[in-house]
Amino acid sequence: MDALKLLVDEVRLTPILISDPPLLNVQGVHQPYTPRLVVEVITRGGVSGLGETYGDGVYLDLARPLADALPGHSVTDVNALFALAASTDPALTVVAEGVDAGGLRGVRTADKLRLSVVSAFETACLDALGKTLGLPVHALLGGKVRDTVEYSAYLFHRWAAHPGAGPTDDWGAALDPAGIVAQARRFDRLHGFRSFKLKGGVFEPEREIAAIRALAEAFPGRPLRLDPNGAWSVETSLAVARELKDVLEYLEDPTSGTAAMAEVAARTDVPLATNMCVTTFEEVPEAFAKEAVRIVLCDHHYWGGLHRTRELAALCRTYGVGLSMHSNTHLGISLAAMTQVAATLPGLHHACDTHYPWQTEDVVTTRPVFRAGRLTVSDAPGLGVELDRPALAALHRRWLDDDGTLRDRDDTAAMHAADPGWSPRTW
Amino acid sequence: MDALKLLVDEVRLTPILISDPPLLNVQGVHQPYTPRLVVEVITRGGVSGLGETYGDGVYLDLARPLADALPGHSVTDVNALFALAASTDPALTVVAEGVDAGGLRGVRTADKLRLSVVSAFETACLDALGKTLGLPVHALLGGKVRDTVEYSAYLFHRWAAHPGAGPTDDWGAALDPAGIVAQARRFDRLHGFRSFKLKGGVFEPEREIAAIRALAEAFPGRPLRLDPNGAWSVETSLAVARELKDVLEYLEDPTSGTAAMAEVAARTDVPLATNMCVTTFEEVPEAFAKEAVRIVLCDHHYWGGLHRTRELAALCRTYGVGLSMHSNTHLGISLAAMTQVAATLPGLHHACDTHYPWQTEDVVTTRPVFRAGRLTVSDAPGLGVELDRPALAALHRRWLDDDGTLRDRDDTAAMHAADPGWSPRTW
Repeated sequence: MDALKLLVDEVRLTPILISDPPLLNVQGVHQPYTPRLVVEVITRGGVSGLGETYGDGVYLDLARPLADALPGHSVTDVNALFALAASTDPALTVVAEGVDAGGLRGVRTADKLRLSVVSAFETACLDALGKTLGLPVHALLGGKVRDTVEYSAYLFHRWAAHPGAGPTDDWGAALDPAGIVAQARRFDRLHGFRSFKLKGGVFEPEREIAAIRALAEAFPGRPLRLDPNGAWSVETSLAVARELKDVLEYLEDPTSGTAAMAEVAARTDVPLATNMCVTTFEEVPEAFAKEAVRIVLCDHHYWGGLHRTRELAALCRTYGVGLSMHSNTHLGISLAAMTQVAATLPGLHHACDTHYPWQTEDVVTTRPVFRAGRLTVSDAPGLGVELDRPALAALHRRWLDDDGTLRDRDDTAAMHAADPGWSPRTW
Repeated sequence: MDALKLLVDEVRLTPILISDPPLLNVQGVHQPYTPRLVVEVITRGGVSGLGETYGDGVYLDLARPLADALPGHSVTDVNALFALAASTDPALTVVAEGVDAGGLRGVRTADKLRLSVVSAFETACLDALGKTLGLPVHALLGGKVRDTVEYSAYLFHRWAAHPGAGPTDDWGAALDPAGIVAQARRFDRLHGFRSFKLKGGVFEPEREIAAIRALAEAFPGRPLRLDPNGAWSVETSLAVARELKDVLEYLEDPTSGTAAMAEVAARTDVPLATNMCVTTFEEVPEAFAKEAVRIVLCDHHYWGGLHRTRELAALCRTYGVGLSMHSNTHLGISLAAMTQVAATLPGLHHACDTHYPWQTEDVVTTRPVFRAGRLTVSDAPGLGVELDRPALAALHRRWLDDDGTLRDRDDTAAMHAADPGWSPRTW
């Protein structure tokens, strides 16, 4: 191995807009197009490594100086990315405010944004390293401990179509229990998913309880999850837990904040999971001490990459906390990264979330195929995906052509297009 | 990369006896020779990877079936070693008893022994992988974050010579403060160490306090540590802490067990460190919850390898606990592994322990050179060390020729050779 071949020669950042269906959540509805950022790290050896992360403006602001600083560094040196990113942040104080609209992960802080940016660079470096060496990314993480990774169906209340212009599909509306069951049946038929997760916090809890009940009847014994993104009070959370305790695999972020989650956890036997009150290492000790959650949803975008995801898994294993995996809207690069790291985690006993089946566009040449709800772990070099450059160019063109209204994901703004008086609800 | 080349073709286990000076500790004195186990993993590509661990009989008993099971597995699959080892353990119930005589790490359990065995196999696999790829081991762990690793001088009360036959050296006795200071001056001159650690628990605490005071006078401002291996009561620990609070970097395992350590910690400002009450992941939550220690000494032999050491570091970082590194008697293979992993740990702010300067024999062809107390992190493929086969053969011959009395380290037995009525003391 000529070490010079592993030095980064160039970093390409390509912001894109990808089509997204009108999926409902507590903050509104997915916009017709949502931003993502594709990171390409090209080595002096001419190998291109791929990463993918959030594409909103604040992420781009952090990614650009890191992209400028990376050439000359080795793609092996991913541990050093954090210090490098911290040293190049130009606008931290600007972005360190408010709540996270797109990510639904509690308060948006500069550290969280930076970790999400670093994650894409780390993934791209590992992909380039793996491609150069002829090794899959999982082999760069100590090797897979399973040959397939299980995913869950991600069910959403949704409209049949976006209120204005936008991409269309034939899924139809799902606004009641029957619609959710129909959606689940289609997911089951198409991809064979065994587990079902329903995004909640959209309608009054009774309606969402009814949807879970309907799923339990339609799919007896299957693992079921409900995630209202913290929209409920402690008492509502407990009421829902009581109603669904016999059928839920876990209840995800029923209420907001570690203190409230701990209060719910203390008063129900239904396992609580989170990807909101524990999304950084800093948030772990308090949540674990208070026994606020029994399952943490890892997410390499949140936690700073694949190595950090493995560290989170070790933390959970040490503290007897379960591990699952979170997903926001993403494409095939991230799905490959999720699968590679998931394959290496011995304690991953829950099916991983993925929005991927909702995404009809992609920047990789081959869509992965779920069989019995599982993806086979690729042993091809790197992430095992190839960039579809014409597709990337077209999606970037869409981003360039946008007047700025879609470059920052805003589910509430999208909802206002249909209902100007709408505001997020809690129960 | 032809993946077949990375498959393990053969594993060679070579138990050896290495010469050791008469260093004193709470359990007695080092025997003239101490067992180590050298693990060689040879790939189908013909590359040999090296690992080193404890060599007592119980470790050999666990290593042999793992060595038999490993051929056909890839050297990339180190995450899978734990399950493989667990599946091949023949004698777990036999070894899961008593306290650890050689390791000085609390109660000896089967899990701890197995982790120490796996660590050598993991190191050997990573060495073979790195050599095959032309990459240093640190690059297989995400890359170094520093170019040199600092070590501390490991000072011992000692005799001039073993009571019976055995190797000799010219260090002379060190049985009082003046002897310890003289030893420290020689270490300083030879290797440039900045930090000094004194193994305590040998004499009454007043004498060891005086030794630390003498070091503080001889080396003003240098980091000083004292480690009596849990020999003191809570009150004695507190008394020593009071006496030395102005000069100690940390006090290591003054007393035994997490509860007693927590009691000491609550009543002194001197940071407590451990490599006895926290030596496995299972022991972490209670110790951290009780704030029993402010610094954990990692040790890849204890924790199950280099990846697990990185996970321990992440745990410590998350919980705001400091990180240092522990050492038992070891050779150049382990020193290389310690240096490679230490180079990747961002939170390692204390100089690492090493017995290495006491070892005059080795199985690697080139002895590493400490400069200003530091080792330069090797960027050579793998661990960056080569096996000295004639030396290995000679040390193995010594093991074969032993009548069994030295194949299991027993510091108390060695002390009894000089003083038949001796028994471990506590204060």
